[in-house]
Amino acid sequence: MKKPRIVILGAGYGGMMTTVNLQKMLGTNEANITLVNKHDYHYQTTWLHENSAGTLHHDRTRIPIKDVVDFNKVDFVQDTVVSIKADEKKVQLENGELEYDYLVVALGFEPATFGIKGLEENAFMITNINSARLIRDHIEYNFARYNNENEERPELLTIVVGGAGFTGIEFVGELANRVEELCREYDIDRDQVRLINVEAGPTALAGFDPELVEYAMNRLEAKGVEFKLGTMIKECTEEGIIVEKDGEQEEIKSKNVIWAAGVRGNSIVEKSGFEVNRGRVPVRDDLRAPNDDDVFIIGDCALVFNKETERPYPPTAQIAIQMAETTAANLKALVRGSHELESFEPDIKGTVASLGEDDAIGVVFNGKKLYGWRAVFMKKIIDNRYLFKLGGLGLVLKKGKF
Amino acid sequence: MKKPRIVILGAGYGGMMTTVNLQKMLGTNEANITLVNKHDYHYQTTWLHENSAGTLHHDRTRIPIKDVVDFNKVDFVQDTVVSIKADEKKVQLENGELEYDYLVVALGFEPATFGIKGLEENAFMITNINSARLIRDHIEYNFARYNNENEERPELLTIVVGGAGFTGIEFVGELANRVEELCREYDIDRDQVRLINVEAGPTALAGFDPELVEYAMNRLEAKGVEFKLGTMIKECTEEGIIVEKDGEQEEIKSKNVIWAAGVRGNSIVEKSGFEVNRGRVPVRDDLRAPNDDDVFIIGDCALVFNKETERPYPPTAQIAIQMAETTAANLKALVRGSHELESFEPDIKGTVASLGEDDAIGVVFNGKKLYGWRAVFMKKIIDNRYLFKLGGLGLVLKKGKF
Repeated sequence: MKKPRIVILGAGYGGMMTTVNLQKMLGTNEANITLVNKHDYHYQTTWLHENSAGTLHHDRTRIPIKDVVDFNKVDFVQDTVVSIKADEKKVQLENGELEYDYLVVALGFEPATFGIKGLEENAFMITNINSARLIRDHIEYNFARYNNENEERPELLTIVVGGAGFTGIEFVGELANRVEELCREYDIDRDQVRLINVEAGPTALAGFDPELVEYAMNRLEAKGVEFKLGTMIKECTEEGIIVEKDGEQEEIKSKNVIWAAGVRGNSIVEKSGFEVNRGRVPVRDDLRAPNDDDVFIIGDCALVFNKETERPYPPTAQIAIQMAETTAANLKALVRGSHELESFEPDIKGTVASLGEDDAIGVVFNGKKLYGWRAVFMKKIIDNRYLFKLGGLGLVLKKGKF
Repeated sequence: MKKPRIVILGAGYGGMMTTVNLQKMLGTNEANITLVNKHDYHYQTTWLHENSAGTLHHDRTRIPIKDVVDFNKVDFVQDTVVSIKADEKKVQLENGELEYDYLVVALGFEPATFGIKGLEENAFMITNINSARLIRDHIEYNFARYNNENEERPELLTIVVGGAGFTGIEFVGELANRVEELCREYDIDRDQVRLINVEAGPTALAGFDPELVEYAMNRLEAKGVEFKLGTMIKECTEEGIIVEKDGEQEEIKSKNVIWAAGVRGNSIVEKSGFEVNRGRVPVRDDLRAPNDDDVFIIGDCALVFNKETERPYPPTAQIAIQMAETTAANLKALVRGSHELESFEPDIKGTVASLGEDDAIGVVFNGKKLYGWRAVFMKKIIDNRYLFKLGGLGLVLKKGKF
């Protein structure tokens, strides 16, 4: 009898946790497992804003896949996915093709620019290790340039972050700390630097407890962050951004514009013919694609609704990891001939947003609010817990935050 | 009786050593000493190539002036010199004017571009802490960009250093080491990087012992440096350089062109009406300007001939320091009413060129040649000896190389 071929696309939170769970749950005689990823490392997307700010080295954020995945049990293919041919049960890669019996699509997110003019060309986006390193170096390079120019160019020292959601706020929190370091490194007065957070909505961290939001904004303002709420970015140019508030337009000159305001599922999924809603596939309860019994879609590419609120769950690492656990269990069932699959039941243990390494806000599962060091501590527990699940105590000690 | 006013322009090797010597040799009741400098720090110009390569942090290279100069004895004015009005015995600064009885011009060097088209606009030059930091970040930024581009752009990873003189060779030596680090930091294969040294003359390190030059070139080639000797840079563009060898022209695409091929004296000296030869003033034996008994000109702005060879001494730190000692002694004599001034007698103790931190070549005073660790050791002795002269053992311990 031929062993079923399980192919997992993407080594983000969802893909990695699926792989690691499967390699524990299935014997090598039960299935052929193949993991496909563009790079030979996994990275923690939720830490990329720190790499981008320059407050944490990217080698802390990434983990060689071989350190976690057992290459005796799993085939690793380093390649880029071009398209999924679900009707042929094949995946087209840049340098080859893979056939599958079961597929796990965990291809992660892309920035959503909502059609804002010039954003894709002129703004930076925090998407992966490469782009995070580039953002870090871009800002640093502009600080280095400042004292070498013949005339004053404040736009070199103006940093604009688009979006005051989770990523935007966490990023400006890191930047607020980083700017102090950059000023020392490049002999620049802190007063010459502007750190601006622009948000179209009426509030930062929409959906978070208002008391915590106020705390966060006060703390960040005290560190020199300027908030522009209810302010739309109309256009991004080489020179900066054009914003609109209450019908009034204003140009903010900046050579450092980073867009951190929205994500959608990887467009490969949509281009491969899966029906999507904002780039995400509304999956079945067992996380399979609506019309395909052999394809699981998880993480940022999947859309799952909270039945109580009738709103979709946000695409977080926590959800992706839990989806991976359900998917691995369901694949085990399928491989062993069962058709009784688990339904995905998210279990939100809490949400913490950092405000730089020294401050944070959070809500834990019982509704308790956390501020300051307690929230920082909670955040570290969450991060370390993931590392423990992924690679045990060894990985926590190697890559954890303490 | 009015105390004579001594004004020292520039806090490089010459200006700093003059100031430090004077503050030891003269009582505060004997003269008013004023030191003028653009920055509030002194830096070791001979280490700037390391800061530019990114192998040594610039805070190791610079020394706060207040750490060495006693502000109870010396007035420090942080300002930029605009011109010297020798006939009025005044110095025009950007934010004021200073009158002097005796002046020490120690304004350092400028890059000499020999009229090569596009060089000033498109090439980087190692001139001070600001430009060194910029070069470091510029190269690093291009490495960061490489993996974020849609197409391969090898010009981002091509570094061209113009000139295989002392600075050029020492700089490529540091870069050869640095490139290895950058490749690791940015996930780039070393094979994708080119490090090219272009020299118009037929040999590297002209004037150095040929055996040592061969050693240096072999060692640097082994580290991946490509030498293009007998090759003129005809033009520098935004895209790279156009070189000519044996009548054949070639374009080398590079986004990292650093010109390290020549220096001249600060142009303020020429613009202020002093007669110059390649930007340097042929001073009298006692280091005073040809037609001005109250103005000493030292360091890179001064031209002094070796009477044996009839060739000018190269503008080195060693010579500048020795000129400062003569100048301080002569100022002491003048202030105390003597007119018997010392003649400057350079005492060349040896010359060492580093080839990265782990290798060097050198010739010491008795003609002995040094290679490898012996030369590295000698270089450190020279550097630390200067720090000792400038600020005693404390400064050696703080900023020395061991």
